Amino acid sequence: MPASKRCVLLLSGGLDSTTLLALAKRDGWTPYVLTMNYGQRHAYEIEAARRIASRYDVADHVIANIDLRAFGGSALTGDIAVPKRGTGRADSIPVTYVPARNTVFLSFALAWAETLSVADLFIGVNALDYSGYPDCRPEYIRAFETMANLATKAGVEGAARYVIHAPLIEMSKREIVELGTTLGVDYSATFSCYDPAPDGGACGECDACLLRKKGFAEAGIHDPTRYATQSA
Amino acid sequence: MPASKRCVLLLSGGLDSTTLLALAKRDGWTPYVLTMNYGQRHAYEIEAARRIASRYDVADHVIANIDLRAFGGSALTGDIAVPKRGTGRADSIPVTYVPARNTVFLSFALAWAETLSVADLFIGVNALDYSGYPDCRPEYIRAFETMANLATKAGVEGAARYVIHAPLIEMSKREIVELGTTLGVDYSATFSCYDPAPDGGACGECDACLLRKKGFAEAGIHDPTRYATQSA
Repeated sequence: MPASKRCVLLLSGGLDSTTLLALAKRDGWTPYVLTMNYGQRHAYEIEAARRIASRYDVADHVIANIDLRAFGGSALTGDIAVPKRGTGRADSIPVTYVPARNTVFLSFALAWAETLSVADLFIGVNALDYSGYPDCRPEYIRAFETMANLATKAGVEGAARYVIHAPLIEMSKREIVELGTTLGVDYSATFSCYDPAPDGGACGECDACLLRKKGFAEAGIHDPTRYATQSA
Repeated sequence: MPASKRCVLLLSGGLDSTTLLALAKRDGWTPYVLTMNYGQRHAYEIEAARRIASRYDVADHVIANIDLRAFGGSALTGDIAVPKRGTGRADSIPVTYVPARNTVFLSFALAWAETLSVADLFIGVNALDYSGYPDCRPEYIRAFETMANLATKAGVEGAARYVIHAPLIEMSKREIVELGTTLGVDYSATFSCYDPAPDGGACGECDACLLRKKGFAEAGIHDPTRYATQSA
């Protein structure tokens, strides 16, 4: 293994991407951490990303501001109500899906990677628990990788072969929580909720909260999340 | 042909994308026009895009602000000098290449298209005169299209089959100028220069100016561009 393997790693500040960061560090990577601030309803996620990046030895942390709200289209970026307790999953893809989100995020990661002459990109997508999100599936990740190697100077000149690493893609939330716990992840610092209370407490009822709770429960590990409904 | 064919069209305000818009209008498309403001050195390009979009009957015009300068890496977004008279083309890819630019642009176009339930995207890339740009080649465009159909709700559910239209991709600058002239494009309203004078005049010496001049000269059509060097 080379002494320093550099990568660009997408960190949202949630449970999955924080586990991803801990995993990359364990495996000897030097991460350039990228957080996309895409006009979410709340800034708690960005604060969590800052907090987490500062706790790990990373090469750099860039927060890229974009505004997907200009396009509307999702409960996470627009005026559609966040569904509670599965009510948004009547059709196969949840309304919290953000149009082309991972494509936009990976494009920015690719732009930074090309600038840094880095060939490895890490993303914490997960196909099992979020099977309704098309851009979380292995076939999507492979198609992005193929495109990236045709899109870039390094790919065309043969200087690099871009690889999109998605090591959590086939894992259940339980397995992710178990992995992160062995890696010493402090999950109390992470943030997953789609619809937090004004004080930043997690709602406990949106899809992200339900999946997170289920992961901790199935793993038999204490859930350190501060839920707003616990104090209600 | 359906009465209304909707598309998302990327407009920079330059010669190619303005010709693209005129062509799409001739062919009966109703364009949702997207201009990416990516931290260029100058705002003349954005002004040109606004001017041009206002002259055509378009469904909407969104200017999306992103800042690729956070990543550095190009004469168009960073502190590298813009090369004059071909001096930047010593290697095969010009230093004015912006990392992953068309991938970032098409990702935003895809996000908007998905929100609008539009399946057709138009981009004015050109492989002949800019053969040094990897993300202007047909194989890149096809790879993006494949990825887009795996990335999106509409693609997965079979509601749409995304198509990336790049009708200028095999044309020379001369052919583009000839086409645009038959379509009544007012090229004096367009802006191509990488390094304009403070008064907005085109430098006449960067790669974009040289290609543009060559296109008009070879077509035998008067070049209406206001060049700063003409008044020097």
